[in-house]
Amino acid sequence: MRAVLHVCTTCREVATEADPMADPATDPDAPRPGALLHAALSDAAPEGVEIRGVECLSACSQGCSVALSGTGKWTYVYGRLTPADCADILAGASAYAASADGIVPWRERPVIFRKQSLARIPPHTPLQERR
Amino acid sequence: MRAVLHVCTTCREVATEADPMADPATDPDAPRPGALLHAALSDAAPEGVEIRGVECLSACSQGCSVALSGTGKWTYVYGRLTPADCADILAGASAYAASADGIVPWRERPVIFRKQSLARIPPHTPLQERR
Repeated sequence: MRAVLHVCTTCREVATEADPMADPATDPDAPRPGALLHAALSDAAPEGVEIRGVECLSACSQGCSVALSGTGKWTYVYGRLTPADCADILAGASAYAASADGIVPWRERPVIFRKQSLARIPPHTPLQERR
Repeated sequence: MRAVLHVCTTCREVATEADPMADPATDPDAPRPGALLHAALSDAAPEGVEIRGVECLSACSQGCSVALSGTGKWTYVYGRLTPADCADILAGASAYAASADGIVPWRERPVIFRKQSLARIPPHTPLQERR
């Protein structure tokens, strides 16, 4: 395992160009789009990627959302995803897992990762001693 | 040092309710708002918080942006910040540094942290062994 893909299970979808009719106000008892995305991704986890559900990645206006992290790697958060993006998310996660620092060459990233980044955070490195 | 506050130094400001006239197309040679925010924060780093500049947190449409992280803690990313938010950012970073897991009680968070979260990511924990 060289990467963790956190998938927000409480995300609702937002309206996107691809799906301008996405309606977050649908049946409150229906499974959340985030939970459906988590289930779909879990069924097909690639080598080296551990998939973990998480309640709220705090990117609620940009759901569905996922985060990729790993020891010594940059962390990436992506949003405005749908279950239809499953194959691309897994391909991107696989390339991320195979990278040393989490930075995958631009052309090798799925288009959703190029265009739907919400944030990236540098790898955690030891803190400086207090002067 | 119990927390790192990453500050994007390449961020431009976006128009906000507080500053609807913010214009990202101003003089290209002028210091970036993100660099100004980084400088202002660095001048006043509280106990337990290390401030690091970083070129691009990939939240360009939500600048200025910062990220808080620490060993064993949730990571938080905030956006739509300006140098005027300096005192609140530092107060929030200080409370974060003092917390065990990065989760500061809601009422103790500065309003900008309550309302301008872009994402949060669970702490990095050991990966499961491959079955």
